[in-house]
Amino acid sequence: MEAANRGAIQDEIRFVARAEGCSPEALMRRVAKGAVVILKVPFGEGSEALGIGEGLRIKVNTNVGTCSDLVDTDLELQKAKLAVSLGSDTIMDLSTAGDLDGIRRSLLHSLRVPLGTVPIYQAAIDSIERRGSIVDMDEDYILDVIERHGKDGVAFMTLHSGITRSIVEHLKGQPRVTGIVSRGGSFLTAWIFHNGKENPLYSQFEYILELAKKYDFCLSLGDALRPGCLADASDHLQTEELYTIGRLVERARKAGVQAMVEGPGHMPLNQIAANVILEKAVCKGAPYYLLGPLVTDLGAPYDHIVAAIGSAVAGMAGADFLCVVTSAEHLGFPMLEDIRHGVVAAKLAAHALDIVRIGENAMELDLRMAKARARLDWDEQIRLSIDPERAKKVHMAVPTKTGACSMCGPYCTYKILARYLGTDQVMTEKCL
Amino acid sequence: MEAANRGAIQDEIRFVARAEGCSPEALMRRVAKGAVVILKVPFGEGSEALGIGEGLRIKVNTNVGTCSDLVDTDLELQKAKLAVSLGSDTIMDLSTAGDLDGIRRSLLHSLRVPLGTVPIYQAAIDSIERRGSIVDMDEDYILDVIERHGKDGVAFMTLHSGITRSIVEHLKGQPRVTGIVSRGGSFLTAWIFHNGKENPLYSQFEYILELAKKYDFCLSLGDALRPGCLADASDHLQTEELYTIGRLVERARKAGVQAMVEGPGHMPLNQIAANVILEKAVCKGAPYYLLGPLVTDLGAPYDHIVAAIGSAVAGMAGADFLCVVTSAEHLGFPMLEDIRHGVVAAKLAAHALDIVRIGENAMELDLRMAKARARLDWDEQIRLSIDPERAKKVHMAVPTKTGACSMCGPYCTYKILARYLGTDQVMTEKCL
Repeated sequence: MEAANRGAIQDEIRFVARAEGCSPEALMRRVAKGAVVILKVPFGEGSEALGIGEGLRIKVNTNVGTCSDLVDTDLELQKAKLAVSLGSDTIMDLSTAGDLDGIRRSLLHSLRVPLGTVPIYQAAIDSIERRGSIVDMDEDYILDVIERHGKDGVAFMTLHSGITRSIVEHLKGQPRVTGIVSRGGSFLTAWIFHNGKENPLYSQFEYILELAKKYDFCLSLGDALRPGCLADASDHLQTEELYTIGRLVERARKAGVQAMVEGPGHMPLNQIAANVILEKAVCKGAPYYLLGPLVTDLGAPYDHIVAAIGSAVAGMAGADFLCVVTSAEHLGFPMLEDIRHGVVAAKLAAHALDIVRIGENAMELDLRMAKARARLDWDEQIRLSIDPERAKKVHMAVPTKTGACSMCGPYCTYKILARYLGTDQVMTEKCL
Repeated sequence: MEAANRGAIQDEIRFVARAEGCSPEALMRRVAKGAVVILKVPFGEGSEALGIGEGLRIKVNTNVGTCSDLVDTDLELQKAKLAVSLGSDTIMDLSTAGDLDGIRRSLLHSLRVPLGTVPIYQAAIDSIERRGSIVDMDEDYILDVIERHGKDGVAFMTLHSGITRSIVEHLKGQPRVTGIVSRGGSFLTAWIFHNGKENPLYSQFEYILELAKKYDFCLSLGDALRPGCLADASDHLQTEELYTIGRLVERARKAGVQAMVEGPGHMPLNQIAANVILEKAVCKGAPYYLLGPLVTDLGAPYDHIVAAIGSAVAGMAGADFLCVVTSAEHLGFPMLEDIRHGVVAAKLAAHALDIVRIGENAMELDLRMAKARARLDWDEQIRLSIDPERAKKVHMAVPTKTGACSMCGPYCTYKILARYLGTDQVMTEKCL
């Protein structure tokens, strides 16, 4: 960001501009004003990098990571690789059990996409071991963990710096149905209440900015107070946190540190656009990283579909970065199939949005698919599918010898109209 | 509709008003002006009926029906019953093989929801048997089939009356990527080209209105020219057909016949609202029955998710009635699991829309779910799921003894904050 402010076009900017099909100069200006962030791929080749924000393709993140009940580094690597193979642009490591440093480093060295983390998880969990509890977590240790992640090459970190002591006091007076549903947010809130002190991610924000510059990571300002159900949406707490985050974004920009903003959680469909527009206004165009939005509380085990709906509406209003919601959301730890459903749903939403954001250049594959359909070219249709294996299985489920699919069989519109419209289908003499 | 025009509140209106929680008088006014249609449940008890349109809950239809490659009446009944059990409000019989009269009557007598049909399918397929081809289909026979469906108690029929001889002439001059993708539309277009005559569903519209009055069925004016891919969306052909349909809606209303309008097919996200608003303007508020919208051509075998995205955006703009798109769309004949995925996705979109359309009354279950989550009441959460069996399976996939789910385990936010926020969770001493 500093280089962009000086007007210096770095190799990463050129790499992203090429990938996105835009000019390096225009991209640099957006980076300089903070409307685009560039995430590094630390162990990639040359200057691989990923751009997120204004005018760029919508990006998708997938969370992986161990839990107390299942520590299996190989499984997490498999989940991450599956997600990337389906088009996930970044991976976040949300591990909460096992060798946290080791898992993070395995992911960093195994993937060719930017890796994100939530350092407060490790700080809290290590504190249980070191001091017996989360609430006795040492302030300096939190900063040490952030530095360790930075040193390792983490590209972006969720930091819940916007949840302050004064905001959480309101939680007691204005109870929500689901209180706080951010795990990091709950660790920090418990710490604030227990110690009667300010959130270290807020009070030590200047030092965090120094670390971000030194190790070149992007801040992802976490929405610890995102609503956990529709009834809590767009309340005073959520919005007060957003305004705090807006001020932090400005401080980050002054320091030459990149920042994006997370939100908005569970929310009725008709509140989403307002929340995205508010984020863009309050945070002066900072890239918006979607958690959800989930437009009903009743979606589990199909919250990947609920999130695809919410993401599409948020993306139309200007959101830039989708986080995969798996089909295990609200129910348990996601396994491989949950990741697959989640990434597919998010990628479909992202692609539908790119068609609006980028226009014809994003529609090339859609046009190829449409042409393959019109000429009943099943091999090409299956090849172009986001999930060729499953597409083939569904296509073959009811065998047909008509050349069409089993739904219409001899009554396929492409066959019926070929004679009259001069297309190249073989007619089924049976019908016409 | 005639009774509503006279100001007579019929029992069906009272039934629907009770189900929707609105006043019979207000509902009657909306029926009289054509903004709401009432569909009968012919073999239900008493005056069961279903309302679709302005101010009412969004409704969902599921298509079932045999195909040439698989004729199994029991399977179609099973599909219909599964769909209804998941909340489908209506069923359409799209059978194209086997004993068409028998299958339709089985569905009519087995279901307690309004049944819809597409009579042109039966007219065309019978014509192949009777005269050797679709294009030799007899005009009177088409009307006979409509009458037969009416007599049987069909509540609504898709009639492609808006695709006229003058419109299809443009198809030759302005080729689309995917031409016509409506099966009924392709039968009629082939017939028009072959015979050089006007579409009988247009030229005989007055007689069709007489049949509709006599047998009390609702017209569902089919969009034979809906785009079959994004590249064809919102073209002249689609819009010219819509304006023709708008004039037919007016003629239907003058005759005291109920009508809804189908649309808009494949379409980029940012064109959907315009198409819905155009339909409402051109058809003077007639209920809009969604086919799709599909916001990318690349979705198969996940077009149920693509349609959920499109439906939500269309519903926000005023659409009233969703048609389930199954996970077999574009690939083949849908089996039970495809129906399940499709209905679940459509119901989630419809419910998210109802929360906006109806407000708090539609959020009751969401609030119960949110409260169940906050007290970690898994039995209630699974009971409230749209698919309890699958919800339970996902919840149990990774066993945990923490009382929370396996995702967070001991680091469950509800447990961590219970001490400070005075909620009723048992603390895990390990953490705090």
